[in-house]
Amino acid sequence: MEEINNVEVVPCTESEYLKPFRVLYNQVSYLFVSVLLFNTTSHCFVLVKQFRPAVYMCEWEKAKTKTSQGAEKTEEGDASESQEGQSASAEESSPSSQWPPALAGVTYELCAGLVDKPDLSLEEIARQEVLEECGYDIPASKLKRITSFRTNVGLIGSKQTMFYAEVSDDNCVSAGGGDPREGELIEVVKVPLHEAMTFAYDERIPKSLGLIFSFIWFHNNMSPKYKISTNV
Amino acid sequence: MEEINNVEVVPCTESEYLKPFRVLYNQVSYLFVSVLLFNTTSHCFVLVKQFRPAVYMCEWEKAKTKTSQGAEKTEEGDASESQEGQSASAEESSPSSQWPPALAGVTYELCAGLVDKPDLSLEEIARQEVLEECGYDIPASKLKRITSFRTNVGLIGSKQTMFYAEVSDDNCVSAGGGDPREGELIEVVKVPLHEAMTFAYDERIPKSLGLIFSFIWFHNNMSPKYKISTNV
Repeated sequence: MEEINNVEVVPCTESEYLKPFRVLYNQVSYLFVSVLLFNTTSHCFVLVKQFRPAVYMCEWEKAKTKTSQGAEKTEEGDASESQEGQSASAEESSPSSQWPPALAGVTYELCAGLVDKPDLSLEEIARQEVLEECGYDIPASKLKRITSFRTNVGLIGSKQTMFYAEVSDDNCVSAGGGDPREGELIEVVKVPLHEAMTFAYDERIPKSLGLIFSFIWFHNNMSPKYKISTNV
Repeated sequence: MEEINNVEVVPCTESEYLKPFRVLYNQVSYLFVSVLLFNTTSHCFVLVKQFRPAVYMCEWEKAKTKTSQGAEKTEEGDASESQEGQSASAEESSPSSQWPPALAGVTYELCAGLVDKPDLSLEEIARQEVLEECGYDIPASKLKRITSFRTNVGLIGSKQTMFYAEVSDDNCVSAGGGDPREGELIEVVKVPLHEAMTFAYDERIPKSLGLIFSFIWFHNNMSPKYKISTNV
């Protein structure tokens, strides 16, 4: 993740942010899958950490707005705006610039992907994502369906199906990291079971709701098989 | 909701689906709020039900694809594709047409809104949404922060802060329904506490992940104050 350091904000002359739309309607991409991965050898959740241009643009807009409003003014009630550590805010890291550090665009998420191969089952698509992004080779039959829901109903409305899978160190066949041909630059990260609930509700760590929900789902459904600390 | 009946799919000659982007960068809209509302008089959750064009477009794409692939072919592994009742699928309701019924674009969601007034706190914005969409007039101090997270990291990357608020029938001052000037057509629906967990995991009911997560959060955090059935 450290190799992301050439972040620039340039005019969007060719509608870069519309490309996902074109994909959406050309590749039957109304379906997504995500997978909560639990490593039973190390008792860790296996997540991905990605630089997300859209998140970065939000942070850039925020930094710009704050700069124009003056440094003293803070957003009332938004506790997590005073970010530290992993989600360094623009004010702390580059007070003289409107460009936040690249880290401001990095989020923690579940292993996930687009359903772009209509001949494969959702489980098989999920299996491929687990292999490509996280490096674990498991049979599709190990994917347990958690539930499905609509994502971003205001703009996309796609359906996402969430799975749970247990993996072990024996299933680990590569470092993961995504498919470079698809422009993916993914870092695989592990969150120990005993830190999961603290991680889920720590607003300083930028993450997707799917990640938070899946940790709570695990807590409610996988205990007492795996004991998860709720001392938060 | 029944008055939505003139659904047509026409060529998108003026990039209708890009308008949200324009709003996004003009109105400091990197922040959203959502509110889980619990009515302590009737022991019901108060939700909103909306026609979502983006969801409808997804269903339209799905119906088109399935028609072109033949009616016999089903999507393996996607159990909820065999939808019934509230989320009638295209095949069942309009076998001779590629246009699904309007109901296919309706989703259940938490009361929510865009943070478009920079001078107000997130709690105050949330309070206004509760009043406009659901008709309950409560002080901002009754809004308890649950957590925050990133939404749709691939395309938008906005931050959503989720609140919880208890309301009573005494706080109900209008029927809600959103602001017609903003084009909102919202139906307020109640889900009894004892049906909440079944509702949350019923994949035939189209809903946002925020809704599912908030019900589970309530179950984990508001019990035993309010007993929620887990017999699902």
